[in-house]
Amino acid sequence: MGAGRVEAFSDGVIAVILTIMVLELKAPSNGEFAGLLALKLPLLNYLLSFVVIAIMWVNHRPLLNMARHINAQILWANNMLLFWMSLIPFVTAYMGQTNAAPLSVAVYGGVLAVTAASFTVLRLAIAAQHRTDETLARLHKRAHVKSTFGTLLYTASIPLAFVSVRASFFIFILIPALYFLPESKFAQEN
Amino acid sequence: MGAGRVEAFSDGVIAVILTIMVLELKAPSNGEFAGLLALKLPLLNYLLSFVVIAIMWVNHRPLLNMARHINAQILWANNMLLFWMSLIPFVTAYMGQTNAAPLSVAVYGGVLAVTAASFTVLRLAIAAQHRTDETLARLHKRAHVKSTFGTLLYTASIPLAFVSVRASFFIFILIPALYFLPESKFAQEN
Amino acid sequence: MGAGRVEAFSDGVIAVILTIMVLELKAPSNGEFAGLLALKLPLLNYLLSFVVIAIMWVNHRPLLNMARHINAQILWANNMLLFWMSLIPFVTAYMGQTNAAPLSVAVYGGVLAVTAASFTVLRLAIAAQHRTDETLARLHKRAHVKSTFGTLLYTASIPLAFVSVRASFFIFILIPALYFLPESKFAQEN
Amino acid sequence: MGAGRVEAFSDGVIAVILTIMVLELKAPSNGEFAGLLALKLPLLNYLLSFVVIAIMWVNHRPLLNMARHINAQILWANNMLLFWMSLIPFVTAYMGQTNAAPLSVAVYGGVLAVTAASFTVLRLAIAAQHRTDETLARLHKRAHVKSTFGTLLYTASIPLAFVSVRASFFIFILIPALYFLPESKFAQEN
Repeated sequence: MGAGRVEAFSDGVIAVILTIMVLELKAPSNGEFAGLLALKLPLLNYLLSFVVIAIMWVNHRPLLNMARHINAQILWANNMLLFWMSLIPFVTAYMGQTNAAPLSVAVYGGVLAVTAASFTVLRLAIAAQHRTDETLARLHKRAHVKSTFGTLLYTASIPLAFVSVRASFFIFILIPALYFLPESKFAQEN
Repeated sequence: MGAGRVEAFSDGVIAVILTIMVLELKAPSNGEFAGLLALKLPLLNYLLSFVVIAIMWVNHRPLLNMARHINAQILWANNMLLFWMSLIPFVTAYMGQTNAAPLSVAVYGGVLAVTAASFTVLRLAIAAQHRTDETLARLHKRAHVKSTFGTLLYTASIPLAFVSVRASFFIFILIPALYFLPESKFAQEN
Repeated sequence: MGAGRVEAFSDGVIAVILTIMVLELKAPSNGEFAGLLALKLPLLNYLLSFVVIAIMWVNHRPLLNMARHINAQILWANNMLLFWMSLIPFVTAYMGQTNAAPLSVAVYGGVLAVTAASFTVLRLAIAAQHRTDETLARLHKRAHVKSTFGTLLYTASIPLAFVSVRASFFIFILIPALYFLPESKFAQEN
Repeated sequence: MGAGRVEAFSDGVIAVILTIMVLELKAPSNGEFAGLLALKLPLLNYLLSFVVIAIMWVNHRPLLNMARHINAQILWANNMLLFWMSLIPFVTAYMGQTNAAPLSVAVYGGVLAVTAASFTVLRLAIAAQHRTDETLARLHKRAHVKSTFGTLLYTASIPLAFVSVRASFFIFILIPALYFLPESKFAQEN
């Protein structure tokens, strides 16, 4: 199976994930300001999840393009990644509906941690094809360090949510902020 | 990242946005005429939003095709545009469920204003690559004037909704009507 | 704009239309046979709408491929067709939820009539490019007659629903049955 | 119609099927652990259905690529397969909402049995083009045996659900486990 088809399918799945999240935003049934104000948190959560998924999409493409060919390991690492990403709309809705209750924030952090870890698994499956190419191997290593750092931070947000929801949110906002510049520069170069 | 992939992904997101809006139309659970009649406004809102999104899609394509290459600015201007477009189903449902309450009409106008402004930001990011090409620069300038005019009109619809909902709707219908002919002619030429 | 992009976008929209219909099937919340039996009609409606949309997809492709280039007329005839098709999940849910009340059956027939008419409008916009090609002109004429016949039958199902819902359903089943063989043969040839 | 277009459309439909399933997972509206625990079964069902659909997607691609050309038989066998696959989100939700009531498990098994049978029908339609090619004919035969075995197991899960829901689930987990290795190896080779 060519990389192009896996990319196209992943793009389709990610496009749907990104968009159906908005269905979880229940429009108020009255035109009062209070109804709209109650949606402030769900809307900010939606924006956060949108940015997280968009970053994943931006990073996913050049990574998959590096694969010499798509083998079973890569194919299923990718499917696993899509599975965890598909839970993001669910945990976003959960956090929104419970007004960011500690448990919901911990679950949100947990899903993002596993998603980030799945990204690393996909990268490892692809990097295995580049062991003999020093430049690529170095590139993977650098991305790997950053990725592991993100996964650890997301993992830290899980227990932290029961101490301070704000601290977990700080991590949720910090990671996209950190990833943003270098990775989009990377996308630009490729 | 090639323009083709960004286009394909944007198309996927826009296709889903366009289509899931219909899920917000709740079918009446009885077969009486009154139930159907109550849907008149939501249906007209749906038609309006469908046309607005379809026009954006028609204009999006030739714009993105002009990009020499996709850099981080273009990529994230595009993601930002998609984010605001993805809120259109939500504000359409909001307006439908509140029977076009002034606040909901103002919010609808606000989201369209920000979406139109995001379109301008995307155009600016792409136009930055054409500074040395006089023909393209002129084309961007003309599109820019029109785009800014639309954004201003949408912005005007926000306060106007609290005075007269009809006046805001007049703007919502006027802008697609104005954009329709010249832009589709533009699409035809390209 | 190339035909390929319009096709890809239309395919995306049609794929979402086809699939979100299933979201309107509300799974029973108890495991008793009666709950499942109550879904018999919605399930049959879903199958019917799935077949109708699948036929449209099968016919849409070779039609759009015939276009020499995509002009504004074709682009907006296509968008109009997609708009009416996007209402099919809504009217399918309406018919299912009202237990096929006469009004819901009439509305279903009405949307299919307008959708079929939109298909004809799209064909006319494309046929206008083939006036000088006798073979294609003849092909369009033949398809045109069949299409008009379908539109008339669907239109007849509207008043008929108030006399006999069964008669309207007979039409809904008859038209796919009639279209099925020759059109899929046509798809095979192209 | 080229195989590429049928593939792209099928991919779109499958991407939407895979992703909208998550909409059936209703996030708890409170932040207590009990609410999350009540979702254990629906989440496991979602994972199961995700894997089943992902396997179908992985097998669908190389199968369709084998077709010399897409004739009406292949086109409609494929549409029929997509129809049955589109019911998987519905039966997954049904099983989740009824806490895996025997009837819901039987219906789930039934839909998977018919989906697997539809896959066989699609393979037969494509294999009909390869009667003169011994290597491909042998390949189809081998896949056919495996496919029939899966269909029979799924069919067995229907009556079994009324005796022991666990036994049916054993089959639901066994089949992906069996298919997994050889088919993904097959995907790797092609």
